Amino acid sequence: MALAILCSGGDAPGMNPAIKRFVDYVYEKGETPYFIYNGLEGLIDGEIKQATHKDVAGILHHGGTIIRSSRSKRFYDYTYRKQAYENLLKYQINGLVVLGGDGSFRAMEQMSREFDLNFVGIPTTIDNDIYGTDTCLGVDTALNVIRDALDKIRDTASSFSRAFVVEVMGRDCGYLAVVSAISSGAEICIIPEVDFNKKVAEIHLKRELAEGRSYILAIVSEGTKRTQEIAHWLEHDLGMETRITVLGHIQRGGSPTVYDRLLAFEFTIRAVDHLLLSKGANKVVVIEAGRYGMRDIGDVVQNRYQIDPALLSSLNRLD
Amino acid sequence: MALAILCSGGDAPGMNPAIKRFVDYVYEKGETPYFIYNGLEGLIDGEIKQATHKDVAGILHHGGTIIRSSRSKRFYDYTYRKQAYENLLKYQINGLVVLGGDGSFRAMEQMSREFDLNFVGIPTTIDNDIYGTDTCLGVDTALNVIRDALDKIRDTASSFSRAFVVEVMGRDCGYLAVVSAISSGAEICIIPEVDFNKKVAEIHLKRELAEGRSYILAIVSEGTKRTQEIAHWLEHDLGMETRITVLGHIQRGGSPTVYDRLLAFEFTIRAVDHLLLSKGANKVVVIEAGRYGMRDIGDVVQNRYQIDPALLSSLNRLD
Amino acid sequence: MALAILCSGGDAPGMNPAIKRFVDYVYEKGETPYFIYNGLEGLIDGEIKQATHKDVAGILHHGGTIIRSSRSKRFYDYTYRKQAYENLLKYQINGLVVLGGDGSFRAMEQMSREFDLNFVGIPTTIDNDIYGTDTCLGVDTALNVIRDALDKIRDTASSFSRAFVVEVMGRDCGYLAVVSAISSGAEICIIPEVDFNKKVAEIHLKRELAEGRSYILAIVSEGTKRTQEIAHWLEHDLGMETRITVLGHIQRGGSPTVYDRLLAFEFTIRAVDHLLLSKGANKVVVIEAGRYGMRDIGDVVQNRYQIDPALLSSLNRLD
Amino acid sequence: MALAILCSGGDAPGMNPAIKRFVDYVYEKGETPYFIYNGLEGLIDGEIKQATHKDVAGILHHGGTIIRSSRSKRFYDYTYRKQAYENLLKYQINGLVVLGGDGSFRAMEQMSREFDLNFVGIPTTIDNDIYGTDTCLGVDTALNVIRDALDKIRDTASSFSRAFVVEVMGRDCGYLAVVSAISSGAEICIIPEVDFNKKVAEIHLKRELAEGRSYILAIVSEGTKRTQEIAHWLEHDLGMETRITVLGHIQRGGSPTVYDRLLAFEFTIRAVDHLLLSKGANKVVVIEAGRYGMRDIGDVVQNRYQIDPALLSSLNRLD
Repeated sequence: MALAILCSGGDAPGMNPAIKRFVDYVYEKGETPYFIYNGLEGLIDGEIKQATHKDVAGILHHGGTIIRSSRSKRFYDYTYRKQAYENLLKYQINGLVVLGGDGSFRAMEQMSREFDLNFVGIPTTIDNDIYGTDTCLGVDTALNVIRDALDKIRDTASSFSRAFVVEVMGRDCGYLAVVSAISSGAEICIIPEVDFNKKVAEIHLKRELAEGRSYILAIVSEGTKRTQEIAHWLEHDLGMETRITVLGHIQRGGSPTVYDRLLAFEFTIRAVDHLLLSKGANKVVVIEAGRYGMRDIGDVVQNRYQIDPALLSSLNRLD
Repeated sequence: MALAILCSGGDAPGMNPAIKRFVDYVYEKGETPYFIYNGLEGLIDGEIKQATHKDVAGILHHGGTIIRSSRSKRFYDYTYRKQAYENLLKYQINGLVVLGGDGSFRAMEQMSREFDLNFVGIPTTIDNDIYGTDTCLGVDTALNVIRDALDKIRDTASSFSRAFVVEVMGRDCGYLAVVSAISSGAEICIIPEVDFNKKVAEIHLKRELAEGRSYILAIVSEGTKRTQEIAHWLEHDLGMETRITVLGHIQRGGSPTVYDRLLAFEFTIRAVDHLLLSKGANKVVVIEAGRYGMRDIGDVVQNRYQIDPALLSSLNRLD
Repeated sequence: MALAILCSGGDAPGMNPAIKRFVDYVYEKGETPYFIYNGLEGLIDGEIKQATHKDVAGILHHGGTIIRSSRSKRFYDYTYRKQAYENLLKYQINGLVVLGGDGSFRAMEQMSREFDLNFVGIPTTIDNDIYGTDTCLGVDTALNVIRDALDKIRDTASSFSRAFVVEVMGRDCGYLAVVSAISSGAEICIIPEVDFNKKVAEIHLKRELAEGRSYILAIVSEGTKRTQEIAHWLEHDLGMETRITVLGHIQRGGSPTVYDRLLAFEFTIRAVDHLLLSKGANKVVVIEAGRYGMRDIGDVVQNRYQIDPALLSSLNRLD
Repeated sequence: MALAILCSGGDAPGMNPAIKRFVDYVYEKGETPYFIYNGLEGLIDGEIKQATHKDVAGILHHGGTIIRSSRSKRFYDYTYRKQAYENLLKYQINGLVVLGGDGSFRAMEQMSREFDLNFVGIPTTIDNDIYGTDTCLGVDTALNVIRDALDKIRDTASSFSRAFVVEVMGRDCGYLAVVSAISSGAEICIIPEVDFNKKVAEIHLKRELAEGRSYILAIVSEGTKRTQEIAHWLEHDLGMETRITVLGHIQRGGSPTVYDRLLAFEFTIRAVDHLLLSKGANKVVVIEAGRYGMRDIGDVVQNRYQIDPALLSSLNRLD
């Protein structure tokens, strides 16, 4: 039996450990693993080859993905999805593991309704915005990369009276920002999910500054597009010399943490087992309350991830 | 109401975030937080002072503990436990949070049977050997420090045909060794819980070496005291130039990971809440299958932690 | 004899090792070390206290400065400089070590022309823009922090066809950008000192993209204010999905490198020796071609640092 | 013209940047670069292939060496040296760049006396024990890896009264130990070059412990083989709970620092230029007092590196 793996959408740390485990485990099971390079683009173009143990030697500690990823506009077009399906037939690939996020799963779900497809999605995105799973592959590494940056900013913050605005990733989901703000003790956290009352915060912060507070750290979720506005407010209304850091794609790099490696292994084993043992509904492997499970792809793509309200209420309250 | 915190036994990363949260949260609740410096030794000697917000500013990213820890032989003696208790009375301390491991909890349990004590233990040890909780404060950071070391060894391992023996912490519990071996893909893992059959491994490894394997990575749990023996075996019986690394206390240092900071916050809040709300049985705060809970101190100290068999079976099998 | 130390202007990693060495060495010499907190602001306001060994225990590996720094507008006013001088007299401080950059040295030089001042400047700035010294305290650490960020971006860059624009510090001096671009193999480097010909670069890059180049890394010096423009150009004219990272004050944090610690020690010892042994001209301690020396303060502030042309010519040439 | 590169002896961080620069620069010069895999062993066995730009893409930030290294016993035998020379002739390789240490240079010097060889050595060893150059490729990275480990030990050291013995690399040369001890403020440093008077140190340390010193950090150079002895002394004669860390090959791994990358580039360019422009004496490229130069191979291998006495005198004096 031939099983293939591909990465789709934004890359995330942990993809390489998943790819390595996929290859080793599929061989262990006596089946044949394939790589589809370059995501859905490569699936359309037939960039497919049998994977070897050697391909995946020594990649556990490298960020990124050795089989590359992409976003595919062509995949929206039925003709190209058909072409993609024919490539799978050509290599007699019976099962597909897809490392990706919401958008990628949506694309696969579309394809699964049109063709006889057998796939399992592994939730892989540092944004942590996938319904039905508590966490996604890459999140723990991204959080620790942000932590390392904030640790460095703390050093300099406590040396000079200044405000710092740090923009972290997260399009529609403020998860990274919220957890980073809590774990680094930031004073301000701006996310798409929660209104931020500048007036109330201003009164509070001015009192603290008068009482001796020497610096302010604000974490802003990229998706809010409020980085410049918050910096301007701190500089002009609060009178603090203010500096901006935009972490950008640093957050997608770095050696995967132990948690992300174990998650990658567990997700992958379950995905392969599902493909080998059960035919039928296409699934996403998830983790909820510390337990692994499978969810229908439709369930995952039709619902929207919500940040745990307990987490939101742990934020520093400035009102 | 006066609540105090102390660290006992080997220090672990995450102690400082717990201490910071303790001080901030106790004040939030309108009560008064105290530090007991230097562990049970300081409790005996009355090294106690009221904690301030300023004491805990900027400590989240520092390993170790600002209130220091110790092992106390004197505490085995009733006279000193009585003296310790009288110090608590003197400062009118009604509740005590203890960051420590098995041994420290045992000491507190002993004291709780003799005196009217109200305490909550927070499982804090990189060894992860405490019954009733899936993980302990400090474990995630220690695992990532080990990972970083193993990442570096991989770089050099793939450049030169050699065997590496890396000794990690863990007295009676091989948890750190097992998880490190799995997440770094080590070939050999020696722990107290599992027999290692050198004869079988030798046949297997010799075949792999003949087929082109260029290096061997062995993780040895300190508690097995087999580091030298395994190195000797690799050098002489397998004919590999072999190098030893003993990680030692590097594993207790470093900026706490995001996971350990959140765990510290959650453990501490629950510990303080318990002390404020409920009188009675002395407890240890735990996390099981992703959920927080409380266990009786007796339950925790009378049972023995066992590594999840699923984890043991994920190890590279050499037989 | 009483000697004091202060930090002025933007902080830089290496300040703490210099402060520690200052305190230990002044005591070694049988004299009395003082701290002036909060830079020139603190000098004006008399925030001065005798330093102890305990103050500087365990600070070598912390970024930032334990005595804090500031920029002082009041110092431009003679009245405040007079007040600052009187504070020195009050504590009978005969010599002053100033960790700072160009602007701080200019301020001190002004003061030295008005009052009987005896000071030595230690060039401390991650911008590396001080005349007469090959490098400044903090530069090596900042370069390695940038390197670590670029290493992470490389991981993700090679996983996805994209362009990355990374803004690094440097107001009028492109040193950090140039060295980072060379040592990380960036394709584009935009600095104040050199014109960048987009037309020529475009032809060159389009050819490389056609031949299979999969990503582009551009380093932009903050002082050029061209970060957005370059990103727009890469996105629109070169057709690459482009992401921006603004490193900001991360570059001022982190544990000082070994080089910066040794530099801190050597600079400090020479500064103290000069203050103890020779009266007279105010100086800046420098390093040129691997040798330490002293330069007149006037010499340093009246000339402008130029990047070594050999370094500029090592940049990837796109024309 | 064909030029080849090989790595010999213990690997060191910075080899990959040198290899990348070699390939790019040789092509820039219009010549053809070759890899010799697996060091002198590969030279004997003819493991030689033309290098491509693609081979060296994305390797700057990886420790180790992509062309592998080895120690060769066969090379002591004339027959094999002859075979090695014939391999060079076979590929018409006119010049050879050797990344290695003392032993490797000695081997090359021997070969150069027997055959018409044209080679340049690049001093590459974390031990920093090569005569005629102030520093070697890999030293700066190794020092910073040690620093990172010592930073972590400091965290835990200040939390618990204990002594730490940290063994660092260095066979006959205590350079790594000395610089690490200075830059991390260790109390004790044991190296081959200097006697350590335990009696005197004991008096000194006992006084400090009585006065409140809470921990002791000792750095021991591997070559002294005194790690266990010093630990025993601290535990038994000074009464400190003592822990050992043996850093081992961690010190050879990790992403090369900016300094080591620049050094790799400069050394490599000079090596290639020498091979292209001048025939004749075989050389080692060196750096002295911040200036690059060339030394005769005989000069380098017949003399012995000595640590700068000024550095030795900067050590904490315990007598």
